Amino acid sequence: MAGRKALEIYVDLLSQPCRAVHIFLNHNKIPHKVKMVALRKGEHKTPEFTIFNPMQKVPVMVDNGFVLTESDAILKYLATNYNAPEHWYPTLPEKRARVDEYTAWHHTNTRPFAAKVFIMEVLLARMNGQPPDPEKLQRALGQMNEMLDKLEDMFLKRKPFLCGDDITLADLLAICEIMQPLGGDRDILKERPKLLAWKGRVQSVLKDSFDEAHGVLYRVRDNFRAKL
Amino acid sequence: MAGRKALEIYVDLLSQPCRAVHIFLNHNKIPHKVKMVALRKGEHKTPEFTIFNPMQKVPVMVDNGFVLTESDAILKYLATNYNAPEHWYPTLPEKRARVDEYTAWHHTNTRPFAAKVFIMEVLLARMNGQPPDPEKLQRALGQMNEMLDKLEDMFLKRKPFLCGDDITLADLLAICEIMQPLGGDRDILKERPKLLAWKGRVQSVLKDSFDEAHGVLYRVRDNFRAKL
Repeated sequence: MAGRKALEIYVDLLSQPCRAVHIFLNHNKIPHKVKMVALRKGEHKTPEFTIFNPMQKVPVMVDNGFVLTESDAILKYLATNYNAPEHWYPTLPEKRARVDEYTAWHHTNTRPFAAKVFIMEVLLARMNGQPPDPEKLQRALGQMNEMLDKLEDMFLKRKPFLCGDDITLADLLAICEIMQPLGGDRDILKERPKLLAWKGRVQSVLKDSFDEAHGVLYRVRDNFRAKL
Repeated sequence: MAGRKALEIYVDLLSQPCRAVHIFLNHNKIPHKVKMVALRKGEHKTPEFTIFNPMQKVPVMVDNGFVLTESDAILKYLATNYNAPEHWYPTLPEKRARVDEYTAWHHTNTRPFAAKVFIMEVLLARMNGQPPDPEKLQRALGQMNEMLDKLEDMFLKRKPFLCGDDITLADLLAICEIMQPLGGDRDILKERPKLLAWKGRVQSVLKDSFDEAHGVLYRVRDNFRAKL
């Protein structure tokens, strides 16, 4: 009988949701193979990759022939099937609902508003050979700050983590998005002690897996600084 | 000892995700109280409602003191805690992952691209006292059609429902969004036999609960026609 095929993930570590999946697997010591898909080289748009994932997006997980897209779904599947510690995606209905509530909110708030600043300051600036229009950048920063206010006032409130007393998939997805503007040398939590303390708690749980996944982003920041 | 308080949902039936929750509760005969929140009157922005849900959004569910926002999370919570038939949100990991995959995708695809057409043709047109700019409308319709192509080619493929052989929360969330442009008398599935057949299957499962939830939208369409 053929053995179970190793778990595979297709990622580009400059992609925020890819980093979340990468960190989760490494932190929880879940055996897996990493397949790098370089977005900047268009490797997600090749015919081979398109057959595999018609959405032409990363991350993609393949577990013994089962192909799954969407980081949110991948993380929930992994937490459930690979015996990750209960706190990541609690089974208690009220606690699980809090994680599902955040992840639903995440898609149209944390993710787009942090990403936009990175896209303007790093990707578009590189493509256009000039910095972003100051007015447009201000607007994007304003939207991002409204999102950070909501994270602080609604999700974080008086709890140590976004969904309660312990780290969950919500914190993991959120931190990877919030790190992204660092690629343009912008630390968006600098003047936000409450979120900064939360970030410290998240990092102290994740330890090495956090910096490992963010190595590419740190290099993007270093390049950005060098060109100033 | 005080009894368990009845399940409550705060909704406006002109809101797509509110209809999904409303249909789910009625179809599955889950006892609940409906509290109407008229968005057009700004009832979601009153101080009372804001204390209750600082996001100022509907739907909101209150289950014995537990307040939950985000339709996606509410539906998953209800399916799990109110013994809804297994098919709505399967417990088998691969099947559940398919529903989680769709719901994650839904937030940045089905929902915004169908909603935009409704907003332009009905809400903004009413506010501005004139029909939408034809060029902008064409662009919005183009984006919506790309989304419908993906629903057909990727999710629906050769299956009767979006996530497999039976109806799930994914179909419920999707159909409520896809109905929305009907408020501007636009049937977006008219020339799409594959999606139209899917809609027929969804409606034949949901029966009366579907039309009940869509009564307000049908009236919006009738008003729209009368004004032409």
